[in-house]
Amino acid sequence: MQIAVLGTGEVGRRLATKLVSLGHEVTMGSRTADNAEAVKWAEEHDGGHGTFADAAAAAELVVNATGGLVSLAVLQAAGAANLRGKVLVDVSNALDFSEGFPPKVVSPDGRSLAEQLQKAFPETRVVKTLNTMTNTVMVEPGRVPGAHNVFVSGDDEAAKTVVAGLLGSFGWPADRIIDLGDLSSARATEQLMPLWLRLYGVLGTGDFNFTVSVAGS
Amino acid sequence: MQIAVLGTGEVGRRLATKLVSLGHEVTMGSRTADNAEAVKWAEEHDGGHGTFADAAAAAELVVNATGGLVSLAVLQAAGAANLRGKVLVDVSNALDFSEGFPPKVVSPDGRSLAEQLQKAFPETRVVKTLNTMTNTVMVEPGRVPGAHNVFVSGDDEAAKTVVAGLLGSFGWPADRIIDLGDLSSARATEQLMPLWLRLYGVLGTGDFNFTVSVAGS
Repeated sequence: MQIAVLGTGEVGRRLATKLVSLGHEVTMGSRTADNAEAVKWAEEHDGGHGTFADAAAAAELVVNATGGLVSLAVLQAAGAANLRGKVLVDVSNALDFSEGFPPKVVSPDGRSLAEQLQKAFPETRVVKTLNTMTNTVMVEPGRVPGAHNVFVSGDDEAAKTVVAGLLGSFGWPADRIIDLGDLSSARATEQLMPLWLRLYGVLGTGDFNFTVSVAGS
Repeated sequence: MQIAVLGTGEVGRRLATKLVSLGHEVTMGSRTADNAEAVKWAEEHDGGHGTFADAAAAAELVVNATGGLVSLAVLQAAGAANLRGKVLVDVSNALDFSEGFPPKVVSPDGRSLAEQLQKAFPETRVVKTLNTMTNTVMVEPGRVPGAHNVFVSGDDEAAKTVVAGLLGSFGWPADRIIDLGDLSSARATEQLMPLWLRLYGVLGTGDFNFTVSVAGS
């Protein structure tokens, strides 16, 4: 599949590298066509690089791996026409560290970032997932013991099926993918970030994940 | 130990009953001295009942099992003098359902309910715990499989030690009690409620809990 990964940070590079290893044609999108991180990644991993618009235009599926505070601007730069009809896998979190630690989860009107993106791009099929864990666990769930979970939220059932397939190819068994429902349920996973950050502090590592353990199972 | 349980709802009754079974002298506090639920519970479980102030006055340790939206008013009714120097175990969540489901977690200025209570009663030793699970799991963790966790937040180390002992008597092994740090970390667990509620909807039961699974463990 032709995939655009928007964002050149650690999360974007990790996801892009995994997707290349699975045989996808990946273009890393960034603000400028010659972003040093994107150029380096593309050379090392036989991928492509370009502006957000270049990457989105060529893609069947788009991954938003930018920081949540800039995601809306990034998608505007990518362009509505280049995102139309496509699945947008949103793995971002909007964290405001301006007042130090712990950061605040930015959620205007109590809505999630994912819903804000969906509202701004109504013809794009936004699916929120993977935003509750560190990037190493996203693409290699086996590094954490136990039947830990990944959550999925979205309004488009077919898009969620595509994303579940992608998660499966990352190593997530189907019975560990929890579909929380429509995109408003992304509020719940985005609000998990404060607990994630506290645990990161207590455990001294981000290499962990959450398991939902149910009585009688 | 002399313990006051403030609140006559399902959570309060469950905790009070467990505490009686462990040999504590428990008084259930409510708005009026003759609250029907409290009278019934006291008769059935060989406990006491009285006003919030009556219950708190007699207690060495106080449990806030009231709805989070009224907890501050309840503690004001209990009275600062009756709470002074005592450990307050806060298991509540402040959920506003006025706009339907999902409710909003009420957190003025981004602070937790637990911090608001601590600020209003600076001489009381507030410990937040057990607010991330349903009441049956609170007092019988063995009903959920796996090494699932309970979180503790508080500014007073000695108070947290008392609470860890109480949790141990409920059946929580020490290595499953995660001390998240000072009371500001209660923001993190209070913000978990939206995910808990979504999972309740998806799973069709509240009889579950979260496990923090760490790589290499």
